[in-house]
Amino acid sequence: MVTTRHFFDRELEGLHHDLIKMGSLVEESIEKTIVALKKQDIDMARDIFKNDDVIDDMERSIERKCMNLIARQQPLAKDLRVISTALKIITDMERIADHSSDIAEITVRMSNQKYIKPLIDIPKMAELAKEMVNKSIDAYVRLDLELALSVCKSDDAVDDLFFKIILELINLMKNDPKTIEQAIDFMFIAKYLERMADHATNIGEWVAFIITGEHEHLSRHIKRD
Amino acid sequence: MVTTRHFFDRELEGLHHDLIKMGSLVEESIEKTIVALKKQDIDMARDIFKNDDVIDDMERSIERKCMNLIARQQPLAKDLRVISTALKIITDMERIADHSSDIAEITVRMSNQKYIKPLIDIPKMAELAKEMVNKSIDAYVRLDLELALSVCKSDDAVDDLFFKIILELINLMKNDPKTIEQAIDFMFIAKYLERMADHATNIGEWVAFIITGEHEHLSRHIKRD
Repeated sequence: MVTTRHFFDRELEGLHHDLIKMGSLVEESIEKTIVALKKQDIDMARDIFKNDDVIDDMERSIERKCMNLIARQQPLAKDLRVISTALKIITDMERIADHSSDIAEITVRMSNQKYIKPLIDIPKMAELAKEMVNKSIDAYVRLDLELALSVCKSDDAVDDLFFKIILELINLMKNDPKTIEQAIDFMFIAKYLERMADHATNIGEWVAFIITGEHEHLSRHIKRD
Repeated sequence: MVTTRHFFDRELEGLHHDLIKMGSLVEESIEKTIVALKKQDIDMARDIFKNDDVIDDMERSIERKCMNLIARQQPLAKDLRVISTALKIITDMERIADHSSDIAEITVRMSNQKYIKPLIDIPKMAELAKEMVNKSIDAYVRLDLELALSVCKSDDAVDDLFFKIILELINLMKNDPKTIEQAIDFMFIAKYLERMADHATNIGEWVAFIITGEHEHLSRHIKRD
């Protein structure tokens, strides 16, 4: 029995290692997304697509490991929650990376346009989203409820920035209709960043679920995508 | 061994039944979303939030059943693919329902405004998305590859409608800046519908994955959220 437990713990450690690696890749992809957008760097934007494929592969590989672990070890209660939560977390991470690709696509499209405004709040949103991913994975690995809940709270700051950006863009469009097309692109970029933060919030909520056994409904509707 | 197989098949049948029920609720929620938007019916929009909670609960209950089935039956190869795919499908369905809530939120906000345009293509998108959900679940239950692939193809029609709507809204905004706020709301509604169709496409791809063992990358980046 001790051996089985030992084996299980070692497998779990491997799983944590994989999740941390996937999390780092996702953080890197958020960072590159914003640098590419700021510098209008098409090559970097294309790198993000490649990165996304690697992240997709990691998702599938972790998923397979989780399934095997459940089938072979038949874990109960908390152990089962830890593994099924890993399955949820990788889906959220994969979608964050997809949103990086969404933004990179817009970056490529806008690469030969002069921006209608300097980028200030959009990079701030990205920075927050990146931090939230980092903390949420850390909270999972350390099973740290406080850290998990702090991620959920950060989401409010991201939402505030989102609404600020939308209002600013509406004003720009009203004052100069020539800005409309690009303003819409920036609006979608802001929306993708807001969704990234939502996914990090989901991860925080999954971690709270492992620890408390209750699914924290800190975020209401609109929170997932 | 026969008994075990029999037990497993019966459990699988129960799982299919649950997925069909969840799928019907999701379809109902898409339908209500559009009726509420067209009729500016706040009560119906609020119903959608309640429906969303029921769908969230169903997701968790199906998830628990899948995990138990994996742990107790230790299925291999195709059986394991069928169950792990069910886990993916319910996540996609839950997110479609979340987008119904997203649209219902906007409906409530716009309920006292006269619409800047008659709604024609948005209900068309919704109808297509609903059909795609229906077909994708049907394809899962019957393991019908052709049907699954037809769902993925329908996504192109949804994308075409999405771009058509965006262009039309841009023209409206350019001609009359007073329409900007509402046009943006309609733009997000169109985006949510496009994402719903993407999630149905994901389901179609998961079904193809069960049957062929290969994950069909019919949709590239941008396809998931």
